[in-house]
Amino acid sequence: MDSLAPPSAKTDSLGRRYGGTLPAAGPWNEVIASLLEHRSVRAYRPDALPTGTLETLIAAASSAATSSNMQWWSAIAVTDAAVKKELASIAGNQKHIEQCPLFIAWVADMARNQRISDAEKVTFEAMPWVETFMVACIDAALAAQNAVVAAESLGLGTVYIGAMRNDPARVAALLGLPQQAVVVFGLCVGYADPAAKAEVKPRLPQSTVLHHGRYGAAGEAADRTAYDAEMSAFSARNEMAATTWTQRVINRLGPIKSMNGRERLRSVLAKLGFELR
Amino acid sequence: MDSLAPPSAKTDSLGRRYGGTLPAAGPWNEVIASLLEHRSVRAYRPDALPTGTLETLIAAASSAATSSNMQWWSAIAVTDAAVKKELASIAGNQKHIEQCPLFIAWVADMARNQRISDAEKVTFEAMPWVETFMVACIDAALAAQNAVVAAESLGLGTVYIGAMRNDPARVAALLGLPQQAVVVFGLCVGYADPAAKAEVKPRLPQSTVLHHGRYGAAGEAADRTAYDAEMSAFSARNEMAATTWTQRVINRLGPIKSMNGRERLRSVLAKLGFELR
Repeated sequence: MDSLAPPSAKTDSLGRRYGGTLPAAGPWNEVIASLLEHRSVRAYRPDALPTGTLETLIAAASSAATSSNMQWWSAIAVTDAAVKKELASIAGNQKHIEQCPLFIAWVADMARNQRISDAEKVTFEAMPWVETFMVACIDAALAAQNAVVAAESLGLGTVYIGAMRNDPARVAALLGLPQQAVVVFGLCVGYADPAAKAEVKPRLPQSTVLHHGRYGAAGEAADRTAYDAEMSAFSARNEMAATTWTQRVINRLGPIKSMNGRERLRSVLAKLGFELR
Repeated sequence: MDSLAPPSAKTDSLGRRYGGTLPAAGPWNEVIASLLEHRSVRAYRPDALPTGTLETLIAAASSAATSSNMQWWSAIAVTDAAVKKELASIAGNQKHIEQCPLFIAWVADMARNQRISDAEKVTFEAMPWVETFMVACIDAALAAQNAVVAAESLGLGTVYIGAMRNDPARVAALLGLPQQAVVVFGLCVGYADPAAKAEVKPRLPQSTVLHHGRYGAAGEAADRTAYDAEMSAFSARNEMAATTWTQRVINRLGPIKSMNGRERLRSVLAKLGFELR
């Protein structure tokens, strides 16, 4: 697909994503413009999705790359109000989980492999390792992100719900997961409530996240000062408290209590059948 | 974007992705059609990419969702022939790493957080946990997948390189990574060599990977039989040896030697500064 957008549309799009520090982006098209417009949606209209939307999203998800074509993920579609309410409660009462017409729980699924091992009577020596769990998480993420891109192309909003990991054992019980399967994150899907503001959130300058040839952090301190100002202004416009990004990082990583119990993840994963050797 | 494709284009697209077991997919558009056409490309023309392509891909990557806007990833663009040759060697001599004009190493990057902790003189208690590493891996995967979608929309081919994890310490040394940063996978980007065949690879039927309300595996054995036949036929058409998918799973997960050293990942990560408590 060739670029049909006027240069100003591209500059506007990059400006929303990067604030004052525009990268020297080159080729452009409407798919890329659509990716740049992503924002997480935390308020939904109750409207049902068109028939077959879930299957379209899963077709997109299945089309993502997967390590050695192993496809170590599953998706559980949740539409039942009582189950969504319970999931919202696990996630610290994130009301959008109740509001959205479709919630998808994305599963790192080694249980399917265990069933193959059992059926074929072959011991799977490569199962209980950090590497294997990591591949399952990455496979689930690649699949989910394709579903997000597909959903947004259809005019739907989404938001990832990492707080499923606040209590993965309760989530597993609620969704009937077997051993060696765990929900790594959820995803709300639905029509954004137009009454809720949703501005594109600025990201760190490319000079911070993109390295040429070798890793380097020479300009990072200056980048962070600029980004702190950008995020303070964004926060003031959108979330009332004008907090810098640095302060948000400190809040998120400083005190152990910010983990909401996720510091127990390793032992919970062990109970769910992931040894992580 | 509304569907302009005739119903037969949608059915053809789903047929390439799912073989004989078509899902009841609904809404459709050209973005979704493009996602469905994904295939991994393992042979590249040497042609350079248009100016600014890397920056466009990173703008797409930065636009993906990221947990709490923490952005725990970095990308290292590698174009130097000698470095690509070394990376190809680490990856078991995958020649496409040498061929492609652009190789991107995707980094789970907690080093940036450590620098913030040091600069701001705040201890980050939430750093050394499995949860935190997992979020960094997922953030890197979401970002990379957006870059892949953007690249493919520009007519470029890509392939993920998980084999960076065969020797993450050597990769880290080669790319100058600090402690608490690790390459979770690589990505080749370039123009596909038209001489190399690249058929869309069929995936497991949706009835295997998509669960409604609760996890279930009732139809899985029958699905797997059908998929084995599909993949045997695909392999015969594309890779000579008509191996079933079940046999590939057994080959990949059965013997520990299939891990190519990745069973040591946990101890290597510890040396790179990831405690994984």
